Amino acid sequence: MLSPRSAIRTLPAYHPPLAGRSGLRLDFNENTVGCSPRVLERLRGLTPEDLARYPERAPIEEEVADFLGIFPQELLLTNGVDEAIHLLCQTYLEAGDEALIVVPTYSMYRIYMMAAGAKLISVAAGKDFRFPVDDILTCLSPRTRLIAVANPNNPTGTVASSADLLRIARSAPAAAVLVDEAYFEFCGETLLPERGNTPNLFVARTFSKAYGMAGLRIGVLAGDADQMRAVRLVSSPYNVNAVALACLPIALADQAYIACYVSEVRKARGRLERVFQSAGIRFWPSQANFVLARVASDKLGAASFVEHMRRRGILVRDRSADPGCEGCVRITLGPSEHTDRLLGALQETIAELGVTQGASRS
Amino acid sequence: MLSPRSAIRTLPAYHPPLAGRSGLRLDFNENTVGCSPRVLERLRGLTPEDLARYPERAPIEEEVADFLGIFPQELLLTNGVDEAIHLLCQTYLEAGDEALIVVPTYSMYRIYMMAAGAKLISVAAGKDFRFPVDDILTCLSPRTRLIAVANPNNPTGTVASSADLLRIARSAPAAAVLVDEAYFEFCGETLLPERGNTPNLFVARTFSKAYGMAGLRIGVLAGDADQMRAVRLVSSPYNVNAVALACLPIALADQAYIACYVSEVRKARGRLERVFQSAGIRFWPSQANFVLARVASDKLGAASFVEHMRRRGILVRDRSADPGCEGCVRITLGPSEHTDRLLGALQETIAELGVTQGASRS
Repeated sequence: MLSPRSAIRTLPAYHPPLAGRSGLRLDFNENTVGCSPRVLERLRGLTPEDLARYPERAPIEEEVADFLGIFPQELLLTNGVDEAIHLLCQTYLEAGDEALIVVPTYSMYRIYMMAAGAKLISVAAGKDFRFPVDDILTCLSPRTRLIAVANPNNPTGTVASSADLLRIARSAPAAAVLVDEAYFEFCGETLLPERGNTPNLFVARTFSKAYGMAGLRIGVLAGDADQMRAVRLVSSPYNVNAVALACLPIALADQAYIACYVSEVRKARGRLERVFQSAGIRFWPSQANFVLARVASDKLGAASFVEHMRRRGILVRDRSADPGCEGCVRITLGPSEHTDRLLGALQETIAELGVTQGASRS
Repeated sequence: MLSPRSAIRTLPAYHPPLAGRSGLRLDFNENTVGCSPRVLERLRGLTPEDLARYPERAPIEEEVADFLGIFPQELLLTNGVDEAIHLLCQTYLEAGDEALIVVPTYSMYRIYMMAAGAKLISVAAGKDFRFPVDDILTCLSPRTRLIAVANPNNPTGTVASSADLLRIARSAPAAAVLVDEAYFEFCGETLLPERGNTPNLFVARTFSKAYGMAGLRIGVLAGDADQMRAVRLVSSPYNVNAVALACLPIALADQAYIACYVSEVRKARGRLERVFQSAGIRFWPSQANFVLARVASDKLGAASFVEHMRRRGILVRDRSADPGCEGCVRITLGPSEHTDRLLGALQETIAELGVTQGASRS
């Protein structure tokens, strides 16, 4: 009888609620408007030949390296950051090795770590989801081989300081340390310049969030050139599709579009936080394009909130099942016209449900 | 010091010659014309919203299942067949398990098998690249956990019979048996109907060859629903991009386009084989959209042939380094206008190089 490896048999399923997403989609931290119009124009100029050929990653990697101010050998374009996580797990984790995450965080770290047969070390975030640097240092062992941190973190929007992340990377020189900067554009802090003197550091970026290209599946993994050579061996030469490769340089060139979107998101953040504050709803100050808020005391209350928002045409994400997130929802931010709609529905929902159980920010 | 797993440190690099492919591209077994015009029309109709959203695989999987006459739970759409191979290796191979391939064959099987830490068992094809069913049966062991067979095979174009493949699958019930039908459309034979009574059988299909969508990266892995549930756990929910998902149903609906292309390729096969025959060049009858031929006695001669063809605007692939393929090149077939150009350049090159060292077909 054929049987999957034991690590696979016990793997949790990850089923994001993708089905039937009609309404204003503030549930997946996507760009709510979409990519730069120039990207769409490039896409529409693609020829049958462009689609028929196997994609060629290398020339686009050179352009991305230029943009990031690093060498092409220091990066790999990936099929979204998910593939970057998968490749790091496969490159560094033997069965029985330890892999460390801080919870709550993005789901795919633990899935790929467990699939590799690693022992998962979940360190709980501190009070107010603060980055638990001391707890992490305590949990390091000679078997720690991979540490993954989303920064800003998802779903909390909180950040770890560069100093703390570097302290961890230097305390665990035999571990790959992935700093997943998927929300970098909204925050502005990066560890990329540290890769030169931190050979176990990897930085991931994505074009699924600020750039509005989640559908195209393209991410970047950057790190020490020697380490990246190993990671590259595990990836298919055809991992990134030709449409994403054609569009990426155009997207990078239109930084005005990104800057404008980021500025809109920051304004929205302030507006949403003020509504939460005046309603006495607990939320956590975010450096990303979303805010986590405790709208109820339990899972049932959060689900009811999500459902009431949905009926008003606004999709938000129930995060109640995440550790430390009881009664919480995560709301993606967008430009002002979307924020107007969001706040209208939010105020009606608050009035209807009488959401007051969360402590005000303190 | 950070160090990759030992299985990764010894992994061979796979660098297909993608750079500078100008001319008629008969080197990657792509569709030389491109996808159906309806696919391109669908692509041009995509909106910014389509690109900004995370791709939703499930509804398209239902359409593909309908097309194949199987249940949606029996398949997974993948980022090309490469990802299907990767997922099978991760699902079934523990370090030290045995994984079997028949050489020469497609390069990515061994790369992902070795990356999983498996012991690679390479069984040489028989005389005239015949499928070595008896040798395979002899090489099976209780540790055999994955067997990958391309059928038709690449780069030889030869086929294994369904009876032989089933005999292997039934003789190795604890091994996953992947039959990679990337070139199915040109051959017409499939093991898909056998999945019901062969729970360790997996069949892969691609849209990179006959369908002309190699740039979009989309493949299908089909198998027993229980096994596919495990394979699915290892895949990212966002593994296939939104452009591929939008275009796939359109491509499937335009079967007239595929039938016409396949018929052109078959005609080209006959024409090319006749030229080889009259020039005394050894070739192997192919069931795919390419033909392998021994144009020289060694690697140097094959490289010279490839270079002479390139100067005449025709790209073909040097396969001299593949086991049993000394002096061989692989030439992709296309419709008649491309075959005219191919045969013109071929006859000039044969006249120039005096290619006569290959024995005639016998």
